[in-house]
Amino acid sequence: MTDTQQVNVLTTDLSMHLEQRPVPEPGPNEVQIAVKSVGICGSDIHYYEHGRIGSFIVEQPLVLGHEASGVITKVGSNVTKLTPGMRVAMEPGVPCKTCTQCRAGNYNLCPGVIFFATPPVDGTFAQFITLDQDFAHPIPDHVSFDAAALMEPLSVGIWANRKANTKPGSRVLITGAGPIGILNAMVAKASGAAHITITDTNDDRLAKAKELGFTTINPTMDAIDDEDAPFDILIECSGAPAAISQGIRALGPAGTAILVGMAPTSTIEVPIDAIQSKEIWLTGTFRYANTYPTAVELVASGAIDLDQLVSKVFTLEEAEQALTYSTTDPAAMKVVVRVSE
Amino acid sequence: MTDTQQVNVLTTDLSMHLEQRPVPEPGPNEVQIAVKSVGICGSDIHYYEHGRIGSFIVEQPLVLGHEASGVITKVGSNVTKLTPGMRVAMEPGVPCKTCTQCRAGNYNLCPGVIFFATPPVDGTFAQFITLDQDFAHPIPDHVSFDAAALMEPLSVGIWANRKANTKPGSRVLITGAGPIGILNAMVAKASGAAHITITDTNDDRLAKAKELGFTTINPTMDAIDDEDAPFDILIECSGAPAAISQGIRALGPAGTAILVGMAPTSTIEVPIDAIQSKEIWLTGTFRYANTYPTAVELVASGAIDLDQLVSKVFTLEEAEQALTYSTTDPAAMKVVVRVSE
Amino acid sequence: MTDTQQVNVLTTDLSMHLEQRPVPEPGPNEVQIAVKSVGICGSDIHYYEHGRIGSFIVEQPLVLGHEASGVITKVGSNVTKLTPGMRVAMEPGVPCKTCTQCRAGNYNLCPGVIFFATPPVDGTFAQFITLDQDFAHPIPDHVSFDAAALMEPLSVGIWANRKANTKPGSRVLITGAGPIGILNAMVAKASGAAHITITDTNDDRLAKAKELGFTTINPTMDAIDDEDAPFDILIECSGAPAAISQGIRALGPAGTAILVGMAPTSTIEVPIDAIQSKEIWLTGTFRYANTYPTAVELVASGAIDLDQLVSKVFTLEEAEQALTYSTTDPAAMKVVVRVSE
Amino acid sequence: MTDTQQVNVLTTDLSMHLEQRPVPEPGPNEVQIAVKSVGICGSDIHYYEHGRIGSFIVEQPLVLGHEASGVITKVGSNVTKLTPGMRVAMEPGVPCKTCTQCRAGNYNLCPGVIFFATPPVDGTFAQFITLDQDFAHPIPDHVSFDAAALMEPLSVGIWANRKANTKPGSRVLITGAGPIGILNAMVAKASGAAHITITDTNDDRLAKAKELGFTTINPTMDAIDDEDAPFDILIECSGAPAAISQGIRALGPAGTAILVGMAPTSTIEVPIDAIQSKEIWLTGTFRYANTYPTAVELVASGAIDLDQLVSKVFTLEEAEQALTYSTTDPAAMKVVVRVSE
Repeated sequence: MTDTQQVNVLTTDLSMHLEQRPVPEPGPNEVQIAVKSVGICGSDIHYYEHGRIGSFIVEQPLVLGHEASGVITKVGSNVTKLTPGMRVAMEPGVPCKTCTQCRAGNYNLCPGVIFFATPPVDGTFAQFITLDQDFAHPIPDHVSFDAAALMEPLSVGIWANRKANTKPGSRVLITGAGPIGILNAMVAKASGAAHITITDTNDDRLAKAKELGFTTINPTMDAIDDEDAPFDILIECSGAPAAISQGIRALGPAGTAILVGMAPTSTIEVPIDAIQSKEIWLTGTFRYANTYPTAVELVASGAIDLDQLVSKVFTLEEAEQALTYSTTDPAAMKVVVRVSE
Repeated sequence: MTDTQQVNVLTTDLSMHLEQRPVPEPGPNEVQIAVKSVGICGSDIHYYEHGRIGSFIVEQPLVLGHEASGVITKVGSNVTKLTPGMRVAMEPGVPCKTCTQCRAGNYNLCPGVIFFATPPVDGTFAQFITLDQDFAHPIPDHVSFDAAALMEPLSVGIWANRKANTKPGSRVLITGAGPIGILNAMVAKASGAAHITITDTNDDRLAKAKELGFTTINPTMDAIDDEDAPFDILIECSGAPAAISQGIRALGPAGTAILVGMAPTSTIEVPIDAIQSKEIWLTGTFRYANTYPTAVELVASGAIDLDQLVSKVFTLEEAEQALTYSTTDPAAMKVVVRVSE
Repeated sequence: MTDTQQVNVLTTDLSMHLEQRPVPEPGPNEVQIAVKSVGICGSDIHYYEHGRIGSFIVEQPLVLGHEASGVITKVGSNVTKLTPGMRVAMEPGVPCKTCTQCRAGNYNLCPGVIFFATPPVDGTFAQFITLDQDFAHPIPDHVSFDAAALMEPLSVGIWANRKANTKPGSRVLITGAGPIGILNAMVAKASGAAHITITDTNDDRLAKAKELGFTTINPTMDAIDDEDAPFDILIECSGAPAAISQGIRALGPAGTAILVGMAPTSTIEVPIDAIQSKEIWLTGTFRYANTYPTAVELVASGAIDLDQLVSKVFTLEEAEQALTYSTTDPAAMKVVVRVSE
Repeated sequence: MTDTQQVNVLTTDLSMHLEQRPVPEPGPNEVQIAVKSVGICGSDIHYYEHGRIGSFIVEQPLVLGHEASGVITKVGSNVTKLTPGMRVAMEPGVPCKTCTQCRAGNYNLCPGVIFFATPPVDGTFAQFITLDQDFAHPIPDHVSFDAAALMEPLSVGIWANRKANTKPGSRVLITGAGPIGILNAMVAKASGAAHITITDTNDDRLAKAKELGFTTINPTMDAIDDEDAPFDILIECSGAPAAISQGIRALGPAGTAILVGMAPTSTIEVPIDAIQSKEIWLTGTFRYANTYPTAVELVASGAIDLDQLVSKVFTLEEAEQALTYSTTDPAAMKVVVRVSE
């Protein structure tokens, strides 16, 4: 193995370039991983197009990519349970482990979290990466590297459904038929939800959702309304203010609204009359915590098939095309960069 | 006992009049109660001033009053645990007991609830009233009838604190220093809350809150900001959009916002960025369920002193003055109509 | 329709006899149902063999049967949502709807519950039965009457899994491969459980469990031990003290043990060291509450197939053979009496 | 400051000796603390008398003491929020921060926890100690060092009451009137519990409990039975099998039993009939997690007065007398070793 590697870097002029960089050495509690697959996330595209997300700004060259899998190539001195050759899904955010939120088990709310591809932390469009040993999750041989990479957005769905307490018999409304909406629907189904309805204003996306077996509604044409009864759970995955408002109104008494899609503005209007008179619980999600073991189980057991969501595959050299591709095909689910086969 | 009684009725021209009406006979599962004390609630004043609350309209004469206590005078044929002479606090809403929400224990969300002083159901500005036996809660001799009447707004505070899961060490922000805000603060204190801060824009009310031992802030003059740390819990009791927004922003990660105060409009703006990035849970309250036994315990044990909240007392004949009094004295906490001594 | 019907009665000498009885008229809140299918439960067999269960003693002729379905033939004067001709699953226990437990949503703990086939309340080995309207649950046309009857034991499984909070990724151990064990396993699977292991000492039952797709262990031959990790959840369905003890020991930290199987004695030994050092939560179940809507959903959607559990079918005349059959075939899952086709 | 200190060591012949040892230097994430007060715990006495607790055996000299407070004298290179001179309560168990249990917030169940005075880890009968910065909790000036030391057993009470979900109106039975029982009662009261009854077979202890304001019962003379109603919560602090059994039987439907007292044997008999028919939840506690901030709040606010529990004070030289004293005075609550004033 050489000691240099290729990475594909977003420069501050928002173009992508291949660079040679040193292969990083793992610290005592880290593993070094040869990256295999990297899924493209909306946040990668957003950084590529706008150079920032909120207060996170691309002020120096940034390696994008945070939905990743690979093979362990080296382990640090304190690493005992992982060995070179193991195939792993990478959990991209490593918290401080010591703050109040970490100690309470809410490590996704840790203010000191280090998260791949969030300025100034580099991501996974690279041949090699190092990662805290506790956040490299081994996967069985029959799970593909693509599927392992997509356990990251799957985690978003697991987390939202946990907060919603989706369970057998739940009636679930999902607004937004993009990858996050679809993954939430898949987790809801795996949780026993009785009725799952997905809405979107894009008919191509709805067609894909229907193909995957879900009931679909285009709210510009039809009312968001279940045939028999109101919904127990809303999992909002579009960030669209109209969807948030309509979705909350579609809930029955004691319903739960989980806002996953990032709202476009810092404040939004919510139907407070419904929230108060029906005692609806509402919250948002910020990443996830303790979801990877569940993600591995759901994929390994076949309960959830992530490979069917891969719409198109690119190489590391083609990372820029991968980023632009999604925007050209509205029905594209997940685009994957295969760093090595 | 005669078979007629006096009631004080709000007519559709929004004036109050004494009337002679028959004393109601209890049904098989009901008790007949000689009313003693009735607290004035903001909703009574609202009906008196505006003739409606939302879709509930005073289209025929309505007896107001729903915070009430009294002495049992007669019991129905199926009543076994209650006997004439018992002193009781009256829970003013009787649900259908059979619908999905009732069966799940959420009887406050029962669509078929019968609630005192909600058109067209008459309330307790009357000498005699009948009530379902399960909703007449016996009180010990050392608890006053005024205190027993005020267990109704106390229930609002118990319910909100239950939803907030207030517990030893909780840091609680209460927006609105009216009776509901003060009662929520009292319940928070009885639940072990470590820091309780009450805000209001009315300095008279704040002075009363301070006198009762709470930290106070006038947000038009000072930032809502705890000295050391963000709040865990917001109990919003003003209905003011600014208070809702500022209150939510004052919460720390994984905080909880309970909206008790009725918002003035059907939609309001909420700081979605805070809700999402801190995973704040938000809900509203609609009345209460299963709170009266706790209310009786808190008052009977001395943990909460409701008598100190009684600002002024009127007779049944003076019910109209009682309704107008509150609006003239902003520092007034609870005004009570003593139907009989 | 005639006004007499056939019922099959257990007399105090513990033999079964057909009798002519009047067809019962529904009360104002009741429906009259023509019984279709009745599942045989262990408690029916126990009354038949021993004349008692605990303090419930067969001191007068008793109609057995409480897992039942049928068609509505008449409705009481207050019934609005149900009409003659509707196919329904019958929830066999009707609570008082007014006590503390009922008001809190724990109606299964209501001390005043009226439950089919529990002395002195007659059960469903009858052509016609009356039932509170809220406890007659409509089923879609494509669900069989046998399946509707078996929603009663399915409810036991739904209730236990709710208490266990079974969710995607859960590792579940089920001790006892009888119908209740199998139904709990089915619900666990529908809830997304990742690993489900069923134990029994009877290899015929284990073979049936294996055929249904579950991992099986005979603890007299192999250790109850998952290959990789301890279990999160124990659902104990045998009542056997050894299973309770071994099952609890097989749980990991913060695990949950749900004791469904009725223990043979009033006290049992539990491994307190494991409960304390791992902070395991343990509880038992007593019937169920608010499970029928979920049961209907799970069966109607195809998530759970109850028909495959029907081992043998008898007529109302053959009810006694139905009761004795189970004891002769250890691999028998559910035996059903079809009162009419 | 010299670089040697005095420690009082338990040798393997189970006698105590003063020794000179080096003052420990803090690691990068640690603080060095001059010990002030150390409370005597039953486990210290048990090691002194028996040389072991379960599988933890005194095979080499061991410094006892784990309920401790002090003043920070030096901070490691990564320590930012703590400075020399700060007065702190010491949380005695430092978990690994990386395992499954730590990541889920259950750090008390971490298999890799390092806990003071648990062989082979030395405790706090020493002039200086080092501690992870996150486990040294600053206390306000008006809180005594004795009170700060006793936040350790107070944490046991906070943890048990959290698991019990003690809240306003709760009816709580506490079996065992030793320090842990009394501290649990104090936390229950601070949580708003309406009725708190403490049982013990030792009348001296009961007298102390009564003096502190609690209802007391000697179960060898009177039935454990509340006058009006069953208990909602049992917090078992004696470890006595009879208390466990009687306590569980005294619970009402849906009650909760928390077993804090260490049972004398690895299995115990529990009344399974009550657990099943009333759906009682039962668990044990193992230390505590995330309780110190609450302990500091409860003591700083005056809600709980720990100083009143200090029965007698000894010096570091007198640690052996401190250990033996408790056993001679059954009414002794907490004995404290003041390492320095």
